[in-house]
Amino acid sequence: MIKSYLLTPGPTPVPPDVLLGMARPIIHHRTPQFQRILQEAEEGLKYVFQTRGEVLIFTSSGTGAMEAAVCNLLSPGDKALAVQGGKFGERWTELCKAYGVEPVVLDVEWGKAASAKDIEQLLSRNKGIKAVLTTLCETSTGVATDIKAIAEVVKKTQAALVVDAISGLGAVECKTDEWGVDVVVAGSQKGLMIPPGLAFASVSEKAWKLAEQSKCPKYYFDFKASRKAMIKTDTPFTPALTLVIGLNEALKIIKQEGLEAAIARHKKMAKAIRDAAAALGLGLFSAAASSDAVTAIKVPEGIDGEKLVKTMRDEYGVGIAGGQSELKGKVFRIASMGYMNQFDIIVAISCLEIVLSRMGYKFELGAGVSAAQKVFLG
Amino acid sequence: MIKSYLLTPGPTPVPPDVLLGMARPIIHHRTPQFQRILQEAEEGLKYVFQTRGEVLIFTSSGTGAMEAAVCNLLSPGDKALAVQGGKFGERWTELCKAYGVEPVVLDVEWGKAASAKDIEQLLSRNKGIKAVLTTLCETSTGVATDIKAIAEVVKKTQAALVVDAISGLGAVECKTDEWGVDVVVAGSQKGLMIPPGLAFASVSEKAWKLAEQSKCPKYYFDFKASRKAMIKTDTPFTPALTLVIGLNEALKIIKQEGLEAAIARHKKMAKAIRDAAAALGLGLFSAAASSDAVTAIKVPEGIDGEKLVKTMRDEYGVGIAGGQSELKGKVFRIASMGYMNQFDIIVAISCLEIVLSRMGYKFELGAGVSAAQKVFLG
Repeated sequence: MIKSYLLTPGPTPVPPDVLLGMARPIIHHRTPQFQRILQEAEEGLKYVFQTRGEVLIFTSSGTGAMEAAVCNLLSPGDKALAVQGGKFGERWTELCKAYGVEPVVLDVEWGKAASAKDIEQLLSRNKGIKAVLTTLCETSTGVATDIKAIAEVVKKTQAALVVDAISGLGAVECKTDEWGVDVVVAGSQKGLMIPPGLAFASVSEKAWKLAEQSKCPKYYFDFKASRKAMIKTDTPFTPALTLVIGLNEALKIIKQEGLEAAIARHKKMAKAIRDAAAALGLGLFSAAASSDAVTAIKVPEGIDGEKLVKTMRDEYGVGIAGGQSELKGKVFRIASMGYMNQFDIIVAISCLEIVLSRMGYKFELGAGVSAAQKVFLG
Repeated sequence: MIKSYLLTPGPTPVPPDVLLGMARPIIHHRTPQFQRILQEAEEGLKYVFQTRGEVLIFTSSGTGAMEAAVCNLLSPGDKALAVQGGKFGERWTELCKAYGVEPVVLDVEWGKAASAKDIEQLLSRNKGIKAVLTTLCETSTGVATDIKAIAEVVKKTQAALVVDAISGLGAVECKTDEWGVDVVVAGSQKGLMIPPGLAFASVSEKAWKLAEQSKCPKYYFDFKASRKAMIKTDTPFTPALTLVIGLNEALKIIKQEGLEAAIARHKKMAKAIRDAAAALGLGLFSAAASSDAVTAIKVPEGIDGEKLVKTMRDEYGVGIAGGQSELKGKVFRIASMGYMNQFDIIVAISCLEIVLSRMGYKFELGAGVSAAQKVFLG
């Protein structure tokens, strides 16, 4: 009997109450019934985003909200600093190019994190940069970036700080207002525990001012249209309303646990994965800056990384992710994000051990699991 | 005991099997398991769109796919003929303006349909029009447009014919390839019987050629990126995968009934609504071109139209729609679209009679229901 365990860095498991909430007969979106749900969800988002400003809701993949940040804050010919140290960081550069925005690229080696110092230097060398585009947790490499330190630097300038927190929000600390992040972009299928299809963007006063000047074409992803509808507890276009219903249920679960406790839980799960990897003699892809949302582990010599992931998934029902782009076959990634607890991690490590053992990798069976248990006990 | 009946022109009711399919534990999208579902759904869409070309899938509201049509086929400075005879026709003009495309507007009186002759004249008077942007069923007015006749005219020119079939596809005839429609845009929450959150666009060879020349900025809604991913049974960005699973279930239901039978069913339901309205002495907003997807009925003198809709919904659980924009309070709209049958219509008419009677409107109680029954018997 195969049971399914999902430890991929998005989509992440959806709590049964959320699934059932979305399975109720559909309602119309322009009714008091839905408006109550939308309003509650909007309040809940502010709690998770740790902001008093608006959190706009878009029916799209996370990338849609990234595009929204670029085309609402910038104009053709503007300069933006794009931090790229992975597949999703590269997306910022691609988005700038698509809109005729000139990207000043901070190329970070994959597996390393961008430093506030590098960003400070680039900002002082390139006058007139209007936005700094960064990534909280780079899903492709498992790297976490110190956004707090970067915000310290950026807030002294005219530039807006935009953070792709798609992987990570709700799992990893991101204090939007306190740190001074101007736009935080998130997606639904990660720390927020619902299926993919909704994307979010918080917008600061500084960002709204940029939005007033922006000349990029936009319609579906127009921040101002979204805010205007929000005032009437509405959305400019028919939203993915079952997902909004699910979101509201998920936000209640987050509130009940408490954001601080949720973040502590994620910290522990990620440490358990890291310690287990060490106990199994496996190296981390980014030892110095491994994120608490997803851990990238190097495939050991002589082991077929793609086969490892496939065997875990197809023969044991345990879904983890392989490497993307240039990391294909070189790393595998275990998420610790959203609706997961200690036993999800234990199952993943146990399955990893079983499959590694079958593939001829030499280690002490149970060492990974016991290292993880130690973390959860501590 | 209030039970809910939904006869709004989107969202429309979702079949229980579809709801349950979407409530299953979530899976990852880059797996053979999801790819099988995506491939089946893509084939099913071709059946409903009646095309052999690609039907691209976007995670967005229907408007997202409308925007995609504009920004993928056109360039700033291009001319496009926009047919506007309602709230959704106006959206074409707004989209053109957002992208610097010059709209040549065919202003049709609300409640009337655009004629092929008018379009032919405008095309010959305005040289160089690259796209004709039309609406199959205008949700705000209940008007159906003769797309077949318009296609006859447009296909002789260099212009691509784009049809917003968001309200209507699967319910009203739209023979994409046979008629020669270049882009058909649809949404998930209407005739396709799933919740909102997915949008679709079929693309003809003629449209692909325009897409090769288009200079509008685009990223998330890029047709070419979507096609490129589709070749590998993938999507460029994490799709709303639970909705894709639901779509696949819904498409199976449509295939089982047969598209022809489904369209005949919608024709009958709409006729029943029209005949019932006549029997109750109520006028249609667009007598000459009333669509089979949604019927707009004039609010009789002395009756508060907004209150009528609210009472039906809040006191009886029967959801119909009021008027939008300039039609607020002047019409109410009953949808006959998607997962509905004769008894949904009977319930709606019966509830309408009960509430009209309570509001003091004079008519023979039961006349509407019996007129509808006659249609279903015939």
